[in-house]
Amino acid sequence: MAKDLQRLLSPGSVAVVGASPKPGSVGGEILRNLQRCGFPGAILPVNPKYRDVDNLPCYSAVSEIPGAVDLAVLAINHDLVLDEVEACAAKGIQNLVIITAGFKESGSVGVERERMLRDAIRRHSLNVVGPNCMGIINSSASARLNASFSRWFPHGGGIAFVSQSGSLGETLLECFGDAGLGVSLFINLGNRAGLSENDFLAHLEADPECSAIFLYLESFAEPRGFRDHVERISRTKPVVVLKAGRTEAGAAAVASHTGSLASPDAIVEAFLNQCGAIRVTTMQETLTALRAMERGVLPRGRRAVILTNAGGAGIIAADACERVGIDVPSLSEEAKRRLAMFLPAEAGLGNPIDMIATAGADDYRSGLEVGLTEADAAIVIFRPPIVLKDAPEAVATCIIEGAATAPDKPVLVCTLSEQSTPAVQRLRAARLPVYAMPETAVDALAALDRARRIRESWQAPEVARTFDSARARAVLDRVLQEKRSGLFFEEGAEILSAYEIPVCAFRCVGSEDDAVAAATALGYPIVAKIDSPRLLHRFEHGAVLTGIADEEELRKVVARLLDVARRSDLGDAQILLQETRRGRELIYGVKRDPAFGPVAMFGLGGTFVEALHDVAFSVAPVNAYQAMAAIRSIRSFRLLEAFRGDAAVDLGPLVNLLTSLSRLALDLPEISEIDLNPVIARARTAAAVDILIKL
Amino acid sequence: MAKDLQRLLSPGSVAVVGASPKPGSVGGEILRNLQRCGFPGAILPVNPKYRDVDNLPCYSAVSEIPGAVDLAVLAINHDLVLDEVEACAAKGIQNLVIITAGFKESGSVGVERERMLRDAIRRHSLNVVGPNCMGIINSSASARLNASFSRWFPHGGGIAFVSQSGSLGETLLECFGDAGLGVSLFINLGNRAGLSENDFLAHLEADPECSAIFLYLESFAEPRGFRDHVERISRTKPVVVLKAGRTEAGAAAVASHTGSLASPDAIVEAFLNQCGAIRVTTMQETLTALRAMERGVLPRGRRAVILTNAGGAGIIAADACERVGIDVPSLSEEAKRRLAMFLPAEAGLGNPIDMIATAGADDYRSGLEVGLTEADAAIVIFRPPIVLKDAPEAVATCIIEGAATAPDKPVLVCTLSEQSTPAVQRLRAARLPVYAMPETAVDALAALDRARRIRESWQAPEVARTFDSARARAVLDRVLQEKRSGLFFEEGAEILSAYEIPVCAFRCVGSEDDAVAAATALGYPIVAKIDSPRLLHRFEHGAVLTGIADEEELRKVVARLLDVARRSDLGDAQILLQETRRGRELIYGVKRDPAFGPVAMFGLGGTFVEALHDVAFSVAPVNAYQAMAAIRSIRSFRLLEAFRGDAAVDLGPLVNLLTSLSRLALDLPEISEIDLNPVIARARTAAAVDILIKL
Repeated sequence: MAKDLQRLLSPGSVAVVGASPKPGSVGGEILRNLQRCGFPGAILPVNPKYRDVDNLPCYSAVSEIPGAVDLAVLAINHDLVLDEVEACAAKGIQNLVIITAGFKESGSVGVERERMLRDAIRRHSLNVVGPNCMGIINSSASARLNASFSRWFPHGGGIAFVSQSGSLGETLLECFGDAGLGVSLFINLGNRAGLSENDFLAHLEADPECSAIFLYLESFAEPRGFRDHVERISRTKPVVVLKAGRTEAGAAAVASHTGSLASPDAIVEAFLNQCGAIRVTTMQETLTALRAMERGVLPRGRRAVILTNAGGAGIIAADACERVGIDVPSLSEEAKRRLAMFLPAEAGLGNPIDMIATAGADDYRSGLEVGLTEADAAIVIFRPPIVLKDAPEAVATCIIEGAATAPDKPVLVCTLSEQSTPAVQRLRAARLPVYAMPETAVDALAALDRARRIRESWQAPEVARTFDSARARAVLDRVLQEKRSGLFFEEGAEILSAYEIPVCAFRCVGSEDDAVAAATALGYPIVAKIDSPRLLHRFEHGAVLTGIADEEELRKVVARLLDVARRSDLGDAQILLQETRRGRELIYGVKRDPAFGPVAMFGLGGTFVEALHDVAFSVAPVNAYQAMAAIRSIRSFRLLEAFRGDAAVDLGPLVNLLTSLSRLALDLPEISEIDLNPVIARARTAAAVDILIKL
Repeated sequence: MAKDLQRLLSPGSVAVVGASPKPGSVGGEILRNLQRCGFPGAILPVNPKYRDVDNLPCYSAVSEIPGAVDLAVLAINHDLVLDEVEACAAKGIQNLVIITAGFKESGSVGVERERMLRDAIRRHSLNVVGPNCMGIINSSASARLNASFSRWFPHGGGIAFVSQSGSLGETLLECFGDAGLGVSLFINLGNRAGLSENDFLAHLEADPECSAIFLYLESFAEPRGFRDHVERISRTKPVVVLKAGRTEAGAAAVASHTGSLASPDAIVEAFLNQCGAIRVTTMQETLTALRAMERGVLPRGRRAVILTNAGGAGIIAADACERVGIDVPSLSEEAKRRLAMFLPAEAGLGNPIDMIATAGADDYRSGLEVGLTEADAAIVIFRPPIVLKDAPEAVATCIIEGAATAPDKPVLVCTLSEQSTPAVQRLRAARLPVYAMPETAVDALAALDRARRIRESWQAPEVARTFDSARARAVLDRVLQEKRSGLFFEEGAEILSAYEIPVCAFRCVGSEDDAVAAATALGYPIVAKIDSPRLLHRFEHGAVLTGIADEEELRKVVARLLDVARRSDLGDAQILLQETRRGRELIYGVKRDPAFGPVAMFGLGGTFVEALHDVAFSVAPVNAYQAMAAIRSIRSFRLLEAFRGDAAVDLGPLVNLLTSLSRLALDLPEISEIDLNPVIARARTAAAVDILIKL
């Protein structure tokens, strides 16, 4: 159930506990920020040492404050925090921002202190931001609150920013301010003893003033909840995530920074993709994407037209489009004809449309109007030429008018200069994103296109599949009862079959005569294996023999395998006969991640997985769209297409196998690991040939 | 022989032909630029329409000018250019800058006009920049020349900038100016009818004022000369190249922009790498790299220390280092001990060194001094904290002092803000590069590290190898005499052997009895093939049989192949027997590129080359260092390492094969294509098993 954060984010009164007139005092800084930002409610300093602070009457304790208090900000010594939380609860203060550090980020005493704080929060059902945070800022139309010690008060706009880190949060906020980005909410989560990013996501989903959400995270407070929220939100507004600790070096830094445990990055990447989040990795990328998202217009496809008065910059933009997968289609003859009516003979009527240096304001309006009929978005490069035909502001106005002819298509402007001229300001006021470099404008369009594809992915039809989980559960219970950690092939096959995962034809046999009868049914050539729950890696024990051609050979092989089993002390061993199955070798698997739960793996078998580690992960549950994306993402994907006379592999069964396997892993938490290696895929089917299930 | 460009770049007198007082006149703009920039020599307007322009006496023709003229700038109608060039030559003017457009970039009349211009240039041995260009600028200590219509006059510094495109050139120049980058020379090549980038490279090699060269190119005027120059220059100064037309979309734009033919990008990439150039692909990347190169200090290794007062930004930097291959090593105990002496307990003594927000100026000096003892370079993040202990300028001074303790190690500063504060200016004045974003500072360090590795690569010992090219030539001459375009296996093997490229053991046989005798020498199992110069793809004709186990099978096979050969109308066919060779399957090849000449290819055979196109190109000649780099660059390189019980493949023979093959292709230009598919590599040897050589 979503927590009510209304009074936290738009309080009528704020107590600042630890407010002080001393220069450098954090509490004092917060008090002054509240005053400076024009907070309309009551500001209530609390500090037993002073009678008044900054011309405001100061209370010796929250209990002394007459009337109700909506929010208390604590900027006091860490040894005093627990008592103060109790005092706030006693006073009936529901919302707290705890600035104070010295909790789980600082050794075992701090860890214990935080445990006690969490207890108090739960006991009193408080909304607590922090501890160890910078505070919160709300500059939306409905509120003016700077309950933080940040120097930067954003000027309002469609973007909400939730940051785990305080120092990077403030840095980003500063950059956003420099860049004129419209941020209306800033939350620094700190240690997340109370509220986490998930609570704020739940709140922002319904916030009509928020057009895009940006999160800086070093770890996820609760991945499952995060996924639920982002899955819903990304259908209507983009969620951009800067996740640090992407790489090993970064991860080491995170560990020492907040004590968070970073998950291997491939899983994080898969997880964010599945959620429908747009992952960015650098600060520049963040700024670029958010600037484009402020306007709230997504393209409907990946075709861009480039309009320029500087040929070389058009080339750079076209190159960049190719790199990021944006199409730059040729123009229709009709469009060329229309352009030729007003552009000079020296102009280039391809795409980029090179209007050359003499292009005037009207050319931009008309060129953009024509260009937008040919594409899903436009990149407009305008560099004021030496000989100004029209003032840059007039050109800006015409670009705005041209963009208005197709208000549902993104128009991104590139000025080839970092300078914030009046023309740039006019464009930004009209909510057209402006970039200095052409490649940056293209990166921004790529981010919008990514948001479009995420939105579309949720519209992909999903066939509801139901599985006979009771049947799988029964097998598992039997194994658990026998206190085994391994399964017979037959048991594994039963569990897989309950989840509609095909297994190759097989028989279990106990003697040579049994084997001969079974082989006749399966058909030669045949494969024979020793099957024992205690035998995890059959190849290492010489326990697999393939290509058995006839009865004579089979008898010899079975006799030998029975002997191996006896000598290996595998008392419960059976002999397994399997059909010989040819096709593309795949590998599927499941592992459990401490943060994300079951993670399914897909890859091409043999060399590809073993030497090239060319595999894709997906966090369970995996829907069909996500499974297809994972399968297509491996580098060796082309090998599943028609190749050397082999037909292309039908991806339907491969997708189903991945979704089923992820469901199975969720339903049967006792299973710690699964390896289906290989799964053999033919044109229309894919079946597991070896099964390893470990409890 | 390098052309003498001294008078072109530092003329004593400049005639501006086409100078005019009219607003918007290009000639007038150039005249005013010359005056404005403080050109110390004589400025001579030439225009029959005026008596004086801008208070300077105007001549009706260059012939009317009394005394010698060092440089003439032509900004006149394209129909007048050829006559004017003749007039300049008659006057004895050696150096021309032709601004005028309307040459090869504009249709067949223009192409013919340019041909005639080239004739005139050659006939009179002129130094000509252009036509269709913006002009040239020299703001080095020894000259003040703006013979261009660019509004931007750079303030001087170590960077020389040669641009093929005018519009992008000026755009970049403007960005460089905004960024305070030290550029002293700007050349816009235009159509390169006379001087090309190669002439300016030759000039800049010896220029002591030039510390780094930047080129924007859409094509290469003459790749071989380019390579010779850059190979030499990159031993002492970095050469950065922004090559447009990198991708298909971009290439289309280039084609319509200057009529240049873009080569496939993989070859361009290989070529630039082999030259020792640092390729950049975006304008941002260009700025980032050049800013770092201005100081002229390269790291001696790839270990970086990160110093920060903002923990989150340190994480972002460490992440970025991991991504670009910069190591962020842990600090030694000794270093931690030294840091702990002055940093507070809350500081993080890992790498990043998190000095937390309270860090003062002295901490930066001492921290940097300690950090630089542990690494090859430092990234210093300094974000002025709320509570300023010291003025940012004081911190800047201490960073400069800290950097001075190891003047041979790069120090890159990140301020987390785009603002050019006094502190930033102080750092830049001390030639420390300053960036806003941590990841940008890391990108800059990566560019420096790339320059280091290039410099080191030229120090790699190269064993001179001599080949028996006469022997190969003799084989080829025989084939040419017989007017064949294909070779017998035996002939191919002879040519390869002359270049020390091993070939598997084989025999040519004409009958079953021959075959049996040969097979005894080669050893069973054996491979038999039909060998005919007319048979390019043996597999398609069932002309290869492998795994022949004994004499009986061999007789049958040989009889059958002889029959196939007869029926296929391959009158000159032989039967080829080969040893059976097992090992890793590789592919080597040669193709001729219209721009770059012979290009050698290396890849893993079979699936990898056919389906995944996982190959590496190198432009001939290929030295051992470059061959090793190419071999290591393929995605499936790991498969050459020890794997599944197979020993690792010794890379020495693989490297030799690539260098030999590239030499062969250069020596024998009649060969249009080579495919060695497969070459079979074992632990210590690699031998060609099939040979396709096409004339």
